[in-house]
Amino acid sequence: ALSLAGGASADVSDWVTLNVGGRLFTSTRGTLTRFDADSMLARMFSTESEVEWSSRVDKSGAYLIDRSPLYFEPILNYLRHGRLILDKFVNPEGVLEEAKFFGLTSLIETLEDMMEREELPDDNTPLT
Amino acid sequence: ALSLAGGASADVSDWVTLNVGGRLFTSTRGTLTRFDADSMLARMFSTESEVEWSSRVDKSGAYLIDRSPLYFEPILNYLRHGRLILDKFVNPEGVLEEAKFFGLTSLIETLEDMMEREELPDDNTPLT
Amino acid sequence: ALSLAGGASADVSDWVTLNVGGRLFTSTRGTLTRFDADSMLARMFSTESEVEWSSRVDKSGAYLIDRSPLYFEPILNYLRHGRLILDKFVNPEGVLEEAKFFGLTSLIETLEDMMEREELPDDNTPLT
Amino acid sequence: ALSLAGGASADVSDWVTLNVGGRLFTSTRGTLTRFDADSMLARMFSTESEVEWSSRVDKSGAYLIDRSPLYFEPILNYLRHGRLILDKFVNPEGVLEEAKFFGLTSLIETLEDMMEREELPDDNTPLT
Amino acid sequence: ALSLAGGASADVSDWVTLNVGGRLFTSTRGTLTRFDADSMLARMFSTESEVEWSSRVDKSGAYLIDRSPLYFEPILNYLRHGRLILDKFVNPEGVLEEAKFFGLTSLIETLEDMMEREELPDDNTPLT
Repeated sequence: ALSLAGGASADVSDWVTLNVGGRLFTSTRGTLTRFDADSMLARMFSTESEVEWSSRVDKSGAYLIDRSPLYFEPILNYLRHGRLILDKFVNPEGVLEEAKFFGLTSLIETLEDMMEREELPDDNTPLT
Repeated sequence: ALSLAGGASADVSDWVTLNVGGRLFTSTRGTLTRFDADSMLARMFSTESEVEWSSRVDKSGAYLIDRSPLYFEPILNYLRHGRLILDKFVNPEGVLEEAKFFGLTSLIETLEDMMEREELPDDNTPLT
Repeated sequence: ALSLAGGASADVSDWVTLNVGGRLFTSTRGTLTRFDADSMLARMFSTESEVEWSSRVDKSGAYLIDRSPLYFEPILNYLRHGRLILDKFVNPEGVLEEAKFFGLTSLIETLEDMMEREELPDDNTPLT
Repeated sequence: ALSLAGGASADVSDWVTLNVGGRLFTSTRGTLTRFDADSMLARMFSTESEVEWSSRVDKSGAYLIDRSPLYFEPILNYLRHGRLILDKFVNPEGVLEEAKFFGLTSLIETLEDMMEREELPDDNTPLT
Repeated sequence: ALSLAGGASADVSDWVTLNVGGRLFTSTRGTLTRFDADSMLARMFSTESEVEWSSRVDKSGAYLIDRSPLYFEPILNYLRHGRLILDKFVNPEGVLEEAKFFGLTSLIETLEDMMEREELPDDNTPLT
């Protein structure tokens, strides 16, 4: 069967909605638990998880997360396809804070490399 | 009759709403199946399609797709009028990931060409 | 009486909501039919119009239009006050596609002029 | 008592919601009527106002205004604290059109000054 | 227990929704009261607070605040993790106005430092 859920064995119960700082994101357990088995999202949304939720759901049933929706967006895309992609106006420091909060180790390194490169003189600076 | 649905023979049942990563997009089957008959969207939304949906609909009846709404937007516009148009802040790599996911072969080539050109030194760099 | 509806003789029945690609826009018949009597919007929303709607309304009663909300926004502002105003990140080619779709002849010319000027070397390029 | 409503004597009946072109803005009568007693908003939302509304409310009770939400945002912020602040991508001409529509005389002058300064060669242009 | 609420002892009653100028933000009392005990948000949302609300809630139960949602976003992120992070297009003057309104003393200083540095000639300007 065709799947629009990214993972191979998406099941209807797989869909979850997150309320991140007031904005809704829809994804699947497969995506949220794909990388870094020790990350907060992986521990929260793995089906065998027995950890206690100290987070709660809002009236619509979305899981509440008290973080920035703006910087969560590239995090979630990374979980979907494994690449970090930022639009030109996005401050990578904002994404780094979220990667640290969620415990996404591999992403933290990628972001720190990106920020180091950005601190070097950029292409607009005439070099002599 | 006048048509605001793009395709020539738009029918009321043609309208579909997609929930892409938490954001709603409204379009028609005619648009979603226009290019690349083998693409995921074409196979999902062609009326003669007998493929099994492993995707599901949300409470409002919108088809759930676990992908980036930000980068889906130019993809959907491409399906509407056949041209790839990106705003200046958009990272074409984000759109490329979606084009690959949905299997839009013609769009992948267009994006790869665009990205090759962007890697050349840009207009701000004084050349000597 | 004071009017927040732009046109001089706004009537309560004048307000219409459009669902453009999933995003809602609220305006008045006066605005939508102001320019280019032959444009698609003018023909759709002029009160004496007898043309058949092949478009439909969504559950909230908004008229469905299968086009880009991002590039419709400056189009609608143009209909409100007669000037084309684009933010700095907006790709004018996206607005041109919408102007063509809706048949806004005067706007097409304005956009083509704008794009020609943009192709000239810009202010950042040192000229010799 | 503490007040999150800006003005000193905010009352519960002070809160109003505006539907500007399809997007909702929440503010208070105190904010909307603060400057330019002759402005359209001041005349509309001053409590002693006897002017007739030719505008109307939508289903949610929000006052309908057929203008651009994008450019209304800095206008409303100006009414909140008295300063005009634009993000870097915002075209000041868009805000000027709204300031003219609403009759905010002091803001019109501020914007025209800003636009004059922007037309001068900017910092990126090598000067000889 | 795992916590997605930032603070260590998040309780279900901790979640609050703010309606800032028409846009909803979801956060916790722990976040809103973390810094600057004298700030307006800390006084409003500390549980031992006996101050009188002159602000009110909207129909959905969200606390009404008559300020800019655009510039509140980095303020709320600062309260979440203690760092001020702005995207490249954001005008720091807009955030400064909000920091002043809410009485976030430490943030005001950070912003004023940032704006002083920005006024220096930037990297694109050839220096002689």
